[in-house]
Amino acid sequence: MTTALFPGSFDPFHNGHLEVVERAARLFDRVVVAVLRNPQKAEPLFSAAEREALIAECLGHQPNVSIVSMSTLVVDVARDVSADVIVKGLRAVSDFENELQMAQMNQQLSGIETLLLPTGATTSFIASRLLREIARFGGDVSAFVPDPVARRMKERFGG
Amino acid sequence: MTTALFPGSFDPFHNGHLEVVERAARLFDRVVVAVLRNPQKAEPLFSAAEREALIAECLGHQPNVSIVSMSTLVVDVARDVSADVIVKGLRAVSDFENELQMAQMNQQLSGIETLLLPTGATTSFIASRLLREIARFGGDVSAFVPDPVARRMKERFGG
Amino acid sequence: MTTALFPGSFDPFHNGHLEVVERAARLFDRVVVAVLRNPQKAEPLFSAAEREALIAECLGHQPNVSIVSMSTLVVDVARDVSADVIVKGLRAVSDFENELQMAQMNQQLSGIETLLLPTGATTSFIASRLLREIARFGGDVSAFVPDPVARRMKERFGG
Amino acid sequence: MTTALFPGSFDPFHNGHLEVVERAARLFDRVVVAVLRNPQKAEPLFSAAEREALIAECLGHQPNVSIVSMSTLVVDVARDVSADVIVKGLRAVSDFENELQMAQMNQQLSGIETLLLPTGATTSFIASRLLREIARFGGDVSAFVPDPVARRMKERFGG
Amino acid sequence: MTTALFPGSFDPFHNGHLEVVERAARLFDRVVVAVLRNPQKAEPLFSAAEREALIAECLGHQPNVSIVSMSTLVVDVARDVSADVIVKGLRAVSDFENELQMAQMNQQLSGIETLLLPTGATTSFIASRLLREIARFGGDVSAFVPDPVARRMKERFGG
Amino acid sequence: MTTALFPGSFDPFHNGHLEVVERAARLFDRVVVAVLRNPQKAEPLFSAAEREALIAECLGHQPNVSIVSMSTLVVDVARDVSADVIVKGLRAVSDFENELQMAQMNQQLSGIETLLLPTGATTSFIASRLLREIARFGGDVSAFVPDPVARRMKERFGG
Repeated sequence: MTTALFPGSFDPFHNGHLEVVERAARLFDRVVVAVLRNPQKAEPLFSAAEREALIAECLGHQPNVSIVSMSTLVVDVARDVSADVIVKGLRAVSDFENELQMAQMNQQLSGIETLLLPTGATTSFIASRLLREIARFGGDVSAFVPDPVARRMKERFGG
Repeated sequence: MTTALFPGSFDPFHNGHLEVVERAARLFDRVVVAVLRNPQKAEPLFSAAEREALIAECLGHQPNVSIVSMSTLVVDVARDVSADVIVKGLRAVSDFENELQMAQMNQQLSGIETLLLPTGATTSFIASRLLREIARFGGDVSAFVPDPVARRMKERFGG
Repeated sequence: MTTALFPGSFDPFHNGHLEVVERAARLFDRVVVAVLRNPQKAEPLFSAAEREALIAECLGHQPNVSIVSMSTLVVDVARDVSADVIVKGLRAVSDFENELQMAQMNQQLSGIETLLLPTGATTSFIASRLLREIARFGGDVSAFVPDPVARRMKERFGG
Repeated sequence: MTTALFPGSFDPFHNGHLEVVERAARLFDRVVVAVLRNPQKAEPLFSAAEREALIAECLGHQPNVSIVSMSTLVVDVARDVSADVIVKGLRAVSDFENELQMAQMNQQLSGIETLLLPTGATTSFIASRLLREIARFGGDVSAFVPDPVARRMKERFGG
Repeated sequence: MTTALFPGSFDPFHNGHLEVVERAARLFDRVVVAVLRNPQKAEPLFSAAEREALIAECLGHQPNVSIVSMSTLVVDVARDVSADVIVKGLRAVSDFENELQMAQMNQQLSGIETLLLPTGATTSFIASRLLREIARFGGDVSAFVPDPVARRMKERFGG
Repeated sequence: MTTALFPGSFDPFHNGHLEVVERAARLFDRVVVAVLRNPQKAEPLFSAAEREALIAECLGHQPNVSIVSMSTLVVDVARDVSADVIVKGLRAVSDFENELQMAQMNQQLSGIETLLLPTGATTSFIASRLLREIARFGGDVSAFVPDPVARRMKERFGG
């Protein structure tokens, strides 16, 4: 049985993330989504608990997907959940450089592989950083995030 | 009548920005420079009001250019000033990725187009971030910014 | 009256090209599509005359768009058609580098500006080079090109 | 059972390719290496038959890996061998752009996924194009290719 | 006598930095490592004094290398130590853009040249930012840093 | 005495190349310009002998610069002229990737270092490929190449 780990901040979880999970769930026996508990980002939009709850709501229909929270190194989580591979979405050149460095460092630290899934055309421009900015100004992000996230952002920020 | 919106932090407004305004003013009937009031950047060099005043001083000779301040989303400002298009300078690969994401997101949010103007060779290396660093150490930035900005930075930081 | 020149090989003219023309036609008074007569590419899919005819068929509905063929430098065509600006679609990092070099060189040669239009998400991955390859193997490219081009490619290559 | 397709020209098959196959063979039940029969590259170093034979020799120890030749579109080969996913090595920014375009186009053509495997640090700089150049000048490429390929290149080109 | 200046934050000094110093020390008569005293980075791992001491320990075996601390512009340090050239390691695309901007700006400010040394394959993925993150979670960074740094990080953070 | 090797096709030798030679000649005791005799490029503008003669004319004023022709691997030329280092100009992202691969491969083949010199702002957009295209259409390239090259291109192509 092959297990893929999908780590991230998911602040917020958006359609690009959803696409990665759904594609990984078709290719691997089990997908574990790991929510980074304390990202170094200055002001998170949602707390770690809120992010986990929202992802669970978005992914309820996927039988082979589970969600964990993560307050340690990705390679340690990978070992704890017996992951065979890390999966990440790949969108842009700046993503690419960063993901490549992390992939090689994680490979050196623990031997684990990283697979990069190129994002589909319609989600390739979605970035959590931009969504946070739009939400803070009361903009409407419902075209970019799953319904549960859209509802929650509307409650919190209007828009 | 075609109106172009040129949004930015402009902290400080430099020769690369000036070049974009002057080129846009030749191509479009009206150019609106929108100064982002509260950038998320840690310590601005100049307040929003100072930045607006400096830009006005630098652009006094352009009859079809006006300046507004902006404390909301770019797409909202574009609607408010009836802009037909957003213009941005394009300098480097990291610019490119970021601008492309914002352009596609703004297009989805409101249908507005973004046009990218490649910066000229002699201004392509000028970055506000580096100018702030040089100014804080008392370096001379007069080769990189319009005269009013140079004078003001000299008063404030020496150099 | 502002005139934009859109030069290219257009072998074949695809949905990404169409998008650039339609967007430019909304922003500028007149758009001139210039078909490079003799691209240095080894084996063109269509002759220059066929490419011009296909583009005319695809753009018949645009009143302010005209088509010329080009067997000289882009800056010379720009002068001949009194273009105020060159427009190009912008898709990828490798595009970006190349377009930036050409934009700066054309600016030095004749003073003409270049504006880059970021391609929309759904056309950003379409490349004539890949379409030629798919067509030669009899693949179906109808999702990527306007109808007249699709019909012609089907006649020529099957698929 | 999950099948991964690894398509390429493999002229020559080098240590970076070998690494991709070995990693994919650990993650997927079956890996099919597809050798592009007629690459558009001007002068191949080895004929398609030679390349297939060399790859077979290099991969003899992998029980779940098979080799096919390919003279059609990758998506057609994927359908013929019932592949669930295409795997490609990912090395550099120019790779990245190209692979992203092909991945999105293949996804549109047939729905098939592409997974990108970042190359390890020690193979990330190896490129078939540079190896062909070194070989033609009689240079020693044995540090960059599996032993069977090194021997064959030495026989053919000296070095 | 040719003097090269190698400026940086070095928080922490890692194998990629060490490689740059050793290569520069073979090419130039004298190498001066300049430790940026107050980087704008939020929480340094080590104080400036600690970083200087660690670098001195790592470089004790290099007769033509000296270490200074720096609390001003790189071009001012270059003038103070009579450097003929600035050397920087070059690793990734995002590095490249940033280094290019700084190189051109420093050249304009004082006329000084910058030379970029491509990092070797085995150190190309090492980034201080990732090392700080691994260290904070108690991970083992000894494969990526010189022994004195590894010992000190183990004392401080465990792992 | 430190010797730097500057290899290239130089078809034609342009202001960006000249800048690299002049900067290298200030930093190293001796600079050897190596002209690649038979580039794989389809139709050279000038023969190898013409290119060598033109470079000699452009560099007559540099006492510590010599010119050789090269019909083998760069690492072999480096050994033959006792070069301590290879120098290359660095201009764009696509340059960067390619130069990085060659630098690492040359380092593996013979241990030789490569130093990259970022091009100055005013020459960063000049590319031999674009100059060949302009020249073939009779365009004026005198702003981009040294005088002897400009004269020769005018004689040959008009413009």
